[in-house]
Amino acid sequence: MTLEEAREQLKTLQAKMSAYDHATALIYYDGCTAAPKGTAENRAQTLGVLGEEGYRLATGKETVALLEFLDAEKDKLTPPEQRQVFLLLKDIREMQKIPMEEYVALQRLMVKADDVWHTAKETSDFALFEPVLAQVFDMHKKIAGWVAPEKAPYDYWLDKYEEGLTMEKCDAFFATLREHIVPLLRKVQAKPQLDNSILRGSFSDVKQELLAHRLMELIGLDQEHVALSTTEHPFTISFGSHFDERITTHYYKEDFSYSMFSVIHEGGHALYDTGSADELAWTVLDGGVSMGIHESQSRFYENILARSRPFCEYLFPVLEEIFPEDMAGHTAEELYKAVNRSEPSLIRTEADELTYCLHVMIRYELERRLFADELAVHDLPGEWNRLYKEYLGIDVPDDKRGVLQDSHWSGGNIGYFPSYALGSAYGAQFLRKMRESVDVDGCLRRGDFGPINDWNREHIWKYGSTYRPGELFERATGETFDPTVFTSYLEEKYTALYGLEE
Amino acid sequence: MTLEEAREQLKTLQAKMSAYDHATALIYYDGCTAAPKGTAENRAQTLGVLGEEGYRLATGKETVALLEFLDAEKDKLTPPEQRQVFLLLKDIREMQKIPMEEYVALQRLMVKADDVWHTAKETSDFALFEPVLAQVFDMHKKIAGWVAPEKAPYDYWLDKYEEGLTMEKCDAFFATLREHIVPLLRKVQAKPQLDNSILRGSFSDVKQELLAHRLMELIGLDQEHVALSTTEHPFTISFGSHFDERITTHYYKEDFSYSMFSVIHEGGHALYDTGSADELAWTVLDGGVSMGIHESQSRFYENILARSRPFCEYLFPVLEEIFPEDMAGHTAEELYKAVNRSEPSLIRTEADELTYCLHVMIRYELERRLFADELAVHDLPGEWNRLYKEYLGIDVPDDKRGVLQDSHWSGGNIGYFPSYALGSAYGAQFLRKMRESVDVDGCLRRGDFGPINDWNREHIWKYGSTYRPGELFERATGETFDPTVFTSYLEEKYTALYGLEE
Repeated sequence: MTLEEAREQLKTLQAKMSAYDHATALIYYDGCTAAPKGTAENRAQTLGVLGEEGYRLATGKETVALLEFLDAEKDKLTPPEQRQVFLLLKDIREMQKIPMEEYVALQRLMVKADDVWHTAKETSDFALFEPVLAQVFDMHKKIAGWVAPEKAPYDYWLDKYEEGLTMEKCDAFFATLREHIVPLLRKVQAKPQLDNSILRGSFSDVKQELLAHRLMELIGLDQEHVALSTTEHPFTISFGSHFDERITTHYYKEDFSYSMFSVIHEGGHALYDTGSADELAWTVLDGGVSMGIHESQSRFYENILARSRPFCEYLFPVLEEIFPEDMAGHTAEELYKAVNRSEPSLIRTEADELTYCLHVMIRYELERRLFADELAVHDLPGEWNRLYKEYLGIDVPDDKRGVLQDSHWSGGNIGYFPSYALGSAYGAQFLRKMRESVDVDGCLRRGDFGPINDWNREHIWKYGSTYRPGELFERATGETFDPTVFTSYLEEKYTALYGLEE
Repeated sequence: MTLEEAREQLKTLQAKMSAYDHATALIYYDGCTAAPKGTAENRAQTLGVLGEEGYRLATGKETVALLEFLDAEKDKLTPPEQRQVFLLLKDIREMQKIPMEEYVALQRLMVKADDVWHTAKETSDFALFEPVLAQVFDMHKKIAGWVAPEKAPYDYWLDKYEEGLTMEKCDAFFATLREHIVPLLRKVQAKPQLDNSILRGSFSDVKQELLAHRLMELIGLDQEHVALSTTEHPFTISFGSHFDERITTHYYKEDFSYSMFSVIHEGGHALYDTGSADELAWTVLDGGVSMGIHESQSRFYENILARSRPFCEYLFPVLEEIFPEDMAGHTAEELYKAVNRSEPSLIRTEADELTYCLHVMIRYELERRLFADELAVHDLPGEWNRLYKEYLGIDVPDDKRGVLQDSHWSGGNIGYFPSYALGSAYGAQFLRKMRESVDVDGCLRRGDFGPINDWNREHIWKYGSTYRPGELFERATGETFDPTVFTSYLEEKYTALYGLEE
C-alpha cells in the first residue's frame, strides 16, 4: 500500500462511517418524530444489525492495518489527517475492548430504553423505567471498566463528552459556581419578582411555528440544510453535519417562550455543526468537537444573545406582528424582564439562566453517586426530590416533572449534563473576547447576526473537531478557562435586573 | 457447516438484508417528507455506501456458498425456506451480472433523479429532467442487457414487478381492456354527466387529516404500526412489513376526495404488507409478492369497496359529521355518483375507475417504445400529449400535468405501470370469489371491514411472498386469470350508473 492509496482509503473509510452514522441517526430521529408507536422493536432490530456492521467496519483487520500504517507515517500527513487517524485509532482501541455482542446489546438496550422512557414519562411511572435504567447504568459501568480500567468509570464517561474532563475538575468548577450563584440567587429571591405575564396566553402551534421559522432565518440557519420538526423533548441531530441537520421543538399553547428559546438553543447547535469547513465533509472532523463546546454555542445563542436587552428590543416588534393581541399594551423592556425572571422551577429546559446550573449540579451529583455505587437506581426519585428541595427549595409533585423529565439517560448520554454548565461558562468568555472586535449589542439591536456568526465561524465552527476542546477554547479566547468570567456576567446581569444594589 | 447452522445463517442473512432495506427505505422516505431541500447530495452519498455494503453482503462469497449449500439440500428445507433460497439465489445471480460500480452508480442516479424530478415538476420544466431521465432509461436498458440478455429489455423489467409478465401478455391484456372500455366510455360520454359538486368546497388540512385517520381505523389499519404523513405524490413504504409501514397523502383544499381515496388506496397496500404472517418477519418472504397483487389490494379498497354504493351509504354520515356545512343538502346517493363520475382527465391518480386503465395504457405504450428505441426521451412530452389526445380526447396544458406527473420514472420504477391495470383486473376476480362466502355489500353498509379483511388475510396477505403471484392468484380464486371478469364488472357498474340501457 502506498501512502497515497492509504490516504484515499482513509477518506473512503470515513465516508462509510458517515453513512452508517446517517442511517443510525435517522432511525433514531424517525422514532421521535414520524414513527408509529408500536415500531420500536423493528428499529432495535435494524440498529442491532447496523451497529454490528459498523463495529466490524471500524474494528476490522483491514481498518486497523490501514490506520496503523498511517499512524507510522504520520509525519507525512496533513494536521487534519493526523487528527483523523488519532481519533479513529482512539475509538477503535476502545471498541476493541468491548465484546461485540455487548456492543450490539447496548444498541438494542438504548432503543428499548428510549421507548420505555417515553411511556414512563407520559404516565409518570418511574417503576416502569427503573429496571431498564438500572441496565443502562450497569452497561455504562461495564463498558468503562473494559475500556478504561485505570479510571473511575464516571471519569471515563465525562471525558467522552468533554475531552479531559474529570470529577476533580467538575467538583472545582461546580464549587466556584455554587459559591457565586447561591448567594446571588438568595439576593434575587429577597427582591420583588419580575413580571412575566407577557409570555402567557394562548398561542397556536401555527403561529409558534411561524415564529420558529422567523428565528431560524434570523439567527442565520440555512433552511435548505436545516429542518425543524416537533418532538417531546427538543434536540438537534446531524445526518452529515453541514449537509443535513435537524432541530426539534415542542409547542406549549400557554407559553410561546419555551419553543422560542428551544429553537434558538437547538439553532445554536445546528449553526455550529453546519459551520464546519467544507473540506471536513464526510470525515470524523466534521461537526462539533465536544458537548461542552456544543453547549457553549447553543446556550450562547439562547441566553447570552437572545436573553439580552438589545435582542429583546429587536424581537418585540416581531412578536407584535405575530401575536398582535397578546403583545398589545406590553413593551420590549417587559419582554426582557420576563425572559430573565429567575425563580426555582421543576424543569431544567425551562429554567432561567441563573438557576439553570443548579439543575445541572443535581444531575451531576446523582450520576457521580450512581457510578460510585453510593446510590441505587431504585432510590433515584427520592434523592432527586430531596436535592430539588435542598438546592432549589421546591417540592417535586411527580416523577414526570422530576427524575423522568430528561431524555439523556434513556438516550445513553450519561456524563453529558456537566457540559451544559461548562458550555454556559465557556460562552461568557467567548462573549468577552468577541466584544473586542464585534459590536455585539449593536448587531442584536439591528437583528443582524452576521458579524456574530462570522466571529464564531472563524474562531470555532469552521474547525469542526480539528482541535481538542481545550485547545480550541484557548485559540479562540487567547486565555485559559476561567469560570468566574461567567459568574461575573451573571452577577452583573442579575444585579441590574433585580436592582440588587439599590 | 451443518444443515442446522446453515438454516440459522439463512435467518441472519435475511435479518441483515432487512436492516439495509429499512435504512435505505427510511432515507428515501425522509427525503420525501421531513428533509430540507438541499440535502439530496448527502442522501446520495449515504445510499451509495449502503448500496455497496448491501451488494457485498448479498453477493459475497460467504453468502453464495451458504445459499448453494442450502440449495443442494433443499429437500430437507421447509417450503418457505425453499422459496427464500430460491428468491435469494435468483437475486444474487442477477446482481452478480451487474458490475458493482454500476450498481452503486444506479443508487446515486436514482437519488439525483428524484431530486431533479421534484424541481422539474414544480416548475413544469421537462428540459431540466430530460438528461437525467435519459440516463435512467439507459441504465435500465444496460442492466436488462447484463442480467437477461436472452430477453427483450422491457420484458425483463415487466417481470420484475409481476413475475412472468411479458409484452406479449400485456398486449393481449390491454387489447381486451381496450375492446371493452373504449366503447363503454363512448356510451358514457353520450349521456348527461353525473354531478360531483358534493366533492367541491374548501376543506381544511386539519379536517381532511381527521377523515384520513377515521378511514385508516375503519379499514382496519393498526395505527400502532402504520403512520400517515404528507408528500407531493402519495405512496406506501415498508420499513419491515408488518412492523412498520408508512402511507402518505396529499391534501387538496378544494376537493377532499383526492386525499380520501389516496388514503384508502395506500391503506390497501399497507393492509397487505402488514398482513404477512408473523413467522415471515425479517425474511425475504415478508410483505407483498408483486406489484400486480399489491395493486389488486390497493385498488380493491379504493375502487371496488370504497367507490361502491353500500360504502357510500356508510360513509356519507361520517362526512356529514366532519364537514357538516359542505354536506348539508346532499345525499349518500349523490356521493356515490360523484365518486364514480367518469370523465377523461389529465392526472392518473385522480382518474375514475373507467378511464384509469387508459392512463396506464399510454404509459405502457411509451415505455415499450422507449425500450425498443422507437422513441427518444426528448420526444416523450410530445408523444405523451399526442396519446392523451388520442385515447382520452384531451389537451395537456403543461408537462407538470403531463409527462412529469408521476414519480415512477424518477423513482426507478420502470415497468411498474401495467401492474395498476392488472391489479384492477385481479381485484374484480377476487371480489367474485369473496362474494361466495362474504356478504360484501352488507359489511360495507355497516362499515365493518372485518370479514372482508379476514378473507383477504386468509387467501392473500398472510402468504407474503411465499407463492408466485400467478400461483397465489389461482389458489385464492380457484381459477385462472380472466380480464373479462373486470370488464364485465365495469360494464355492469357503469351501465347502471349512467343508465346506459335506458
